Amino acid sequence: MAYLRVLNPQESFDPMSPRVPQGYLLSGVHCRIKQDPQKPDLTLIMSEVAAAAAGVYTQNLVCGAPVVWNRRHTPSDRIRAVVINSGVANACTGERGLADARAMARLAAAACGAEEDQALVMSTGVIGEFLPMDKIEQGITSAAVKLGSNEPSLVSAARGMMTTDTVPKLAGRTLALSGGEVQITGMAKGAAMIGPNMATMLAVILTDAALKPQTAQTALKDAVDDSFNCISVEGHTSTSDSVVLLANGQSGSGPLAGDELTAFGEALREVCVELARAIPADGEGATHLVSIEVAGCASRQSALQIARTVADSALVKTAIAGADPNWGRIVSAAGYAGVPFDPAKVGLRVNGFLLYQAGAPVTFDARAVSDSIRDHRDTQIELEFAEGDASGRFWTTDLTAEYVRLNADYHT
Amino acid sequence: MAYLRVLNPQESFDPMSPRVPQGYLLSGVHCRIKQDPQKPDLTLIMSEVAAAAAGVYTQNLVCGAPVVWNRRHTPSDRIRAVVINSGVANACTGERGLADARAMARLAAAACGAEEDQALVMSTGVIGEFLPMDKIEQGITSAAVKLGSNEPSLVSAARGMMTTDTVPKLAGRTLALSGGEVQITGMAKGAAMIGPNMATMLAVILTDAALKPQTAQTALKDAVDDSFNCISVEGHTSTSDSVVLLANGQSGSGPLAGDELTAFGEALREVCVELARAIPADGEGATHLVSIEVAGCASRQSALQIARTVADSALVKTAIAGADPNWGRIVSAAGYAGVPFDPAKVGLRVNGFLLYQAGAPVTFDARAVSDSIRDHRDTQIELEFAEGDASGRFWTTDLTAEYVRLNADYHT
Repeated sequence: MAYLRVLNPQESFDPMSPRVPQGYLLSGVHCRIKQDPQKPDLTLIMSEVAAAAAGVYTQNLVCGAPVVWNRRHTPSDRIRAVVINSGVANACTGERGLADARAMARLAAAACGAEEDQALVMSTGVIGEFLPMDKIEQGITSAAVKLGSNEPSLVSAARGMMTTDTVPKLAGRTLALSGGEVQITGMAKGAAMIGPNMATMLAVILTDAALKPQTAQTALKDAVDDSFNCISVEGHTSTSDSVVLLANGQSGSGPLAGDELTAFGEALREVCVELARAIPADGEGATHLVSIEVAGCASRQSALQIARTVADSALVKTAIAGADPNWGRIVSAAGYAGVPFDPAKVGLRVNGFLLYQAGAPVTFDARAVSDSIRDHRDTQIELEFAEGDASGRFWTTDLTAEYVRLNADYHT
Repeated sequence: MAYLRVLNPQESFDPMSPRVPQGYLLSGVHCRIKQDPQKPDLTLIMSEVAAAAAGVYTQNLVCGAPVVWNRRHTPSDRIRAVVINSGVANACTGERGLADARAMARLAAAACGAEEDQALVMSTGVIGEFLPMDKIEQGITSAAVKLGSNEPSLVSAARGMMTTDTVPKLAGRTLALSGGEVQITGMAKGAAMIGPNMATMLAVILTDAALKPQTAQTALKDAVDDSFNCISVEGHTSTSDSVVLLANGQSGSGPLAGDELTAFGEALREVCVELARAIPADGEGATHLVSIEVAGCASRQSALQIARTVADSALVKTAIAGADPNWGRIVSAAGYAGVPFDPAKVGLRVNGFLLYQAGAPVTFDARAVSDSIRDHRDTQIELEFAEGDASGRFWTTDLTAEYVRLNADYHT
């Protein structure tokens, strides 16, 4: 945590605490979109003052109406609300989909005393249906009554965006800056298995730091590139993937710049990495969280391309599920990544065991490696090339029969 | 079958017959690489005269020694033998791998009265072991004794290259040309599931037509682009994928040119398509053969890129396994293929049922579509765009829990 060295580490605080940053009120309520009354399905987030806001969205050409709405309204210097429903997605960009997204924004903004263009919108869940707007309207009304600034309201808000997730995903960092403490707290949804939600990944990150909109956008983009853009469960880019950042300046620290901005960016990156890792780590269908670390490439982009290709290989993912130290599947996946390299200089380690060196397999204790994979939920694949100094990392899951069963059968 | 119209259809023959072309002798024998004595594991193919030969090989940067050997010796005008072993692959390009490939070529060539550079080599099976050269040498000796020009020898040869395949894969076409009949017969191996052989695809196509080496190479490349390059089971390019064509001119037809060459190319393409389709159609783990047909694109390359992206989507493949007419998964896979298109003009049919039109889902009988998928092994996905007139097609399988079980557990 570099920022603790850069700044003043003498203060005593829990840097991992997901506290609610100053000037935000949150709630998560059940409004009958989901069948189970124990499961919140509507989240409302209010900033007491106009906040700078940034967003990073799916690259899919086919995207949902909320993404269209949010793209239109970020970066911004006047966002007051974020509203999220789970259970049903708003996957259509047709007139009705856009009208529904706008209506959600208007209702959420009104509940917070703001205008419709001051609210961001997210919807996640099954696709192929229109949003139940009557339930959502009631949900926003009851969520507005319950808005709070405490930890329970934060957990409720995180649960209100869950679909197939088994746990709410929260992460936080506190920075001690010259003008006082700044809090960054994020929540995310998305599970390892492909669910009815098309594995949509959503995240909202709140901070009481003061940022200019364009600075917030740049910091968020950099953090997402190192985190949410480095996870791949099935290589399928959802039509709704979204990450938004709100910065309301209520910490009183004044606009960040220089070293303080660098420290903020690093802390934001850590929050995003923690949330991103939690996505493949979740999900009943997965038995391993696999990190693919690629080093010795000519560029970071090349390293990430190789890491992603290995992460997306069904052969590699089934081998990990079977605790099979199959160097052939891993090296050959690297070979078709579309990145030139010298095959005679490739090295590979799995969970620290050397399997392949200078382009050829080495003698290794296959039983020991297999046991290591079987006995640990985290699996580390390290590929080494001799093309340069750049590196990159992707996270994925293994591919199990249970995962396929869950995804083939969810509709029936 | 365009060539029947171009040429003289009055002759009576079975155009689908996988007869042995003139001037070839084949055999497949068991030499104890595979445990089951009922399963041939060594195939020898001999041309009585020097044949023109062409080859198309894996694009993987990491490739096996036989691919290195064959690349070095094709195109050629003097190939006399092809030798193939199954059970153990020669996946290494180290010195020993190359020496073993060369030794196989030398032994096969000697058995046919030729030099080592007149033999092509293929190996397929588990990786991570060296070839059992003593068994292979004995196998080549006994295969040479059994060489024949009849249908049983053809089937034995096709069986000798099988790994996880459940059936030998053969296809043939007969052309009536001005100089007499020409036969094209191909054999292939490769199964839908990811097997111990890394889903390696091998094919050997024999013809008694006369072709110049470069003409053979061009015709083969064109045929492979429309067939073997349009199948994708798990998107993993094997290190050993190879297709070779031998043309020995023993039909006496004289070198092909003009319309006759065009007709030959079309028949060769048909043989390749038939063999290529047989690969995803085979395999215990798959319950559907899925064709993805993409039309209305700006270029054939764009259409193929979209078709391949849909074919490689685990979400789409599990949906088909579950008989789920999930238009969202299909359309969103197209959306991240990296090909620009207007999302508001996309249409989709599954098994002929219209699910999506002008960028939005239509009302359809989900039960009827689901029943149609469940009741047919062949599933047809048709995506229509409004960007141009180009089209492309890919074949794949569904993704079942059984498929994963087979691939995660094969080593244990």
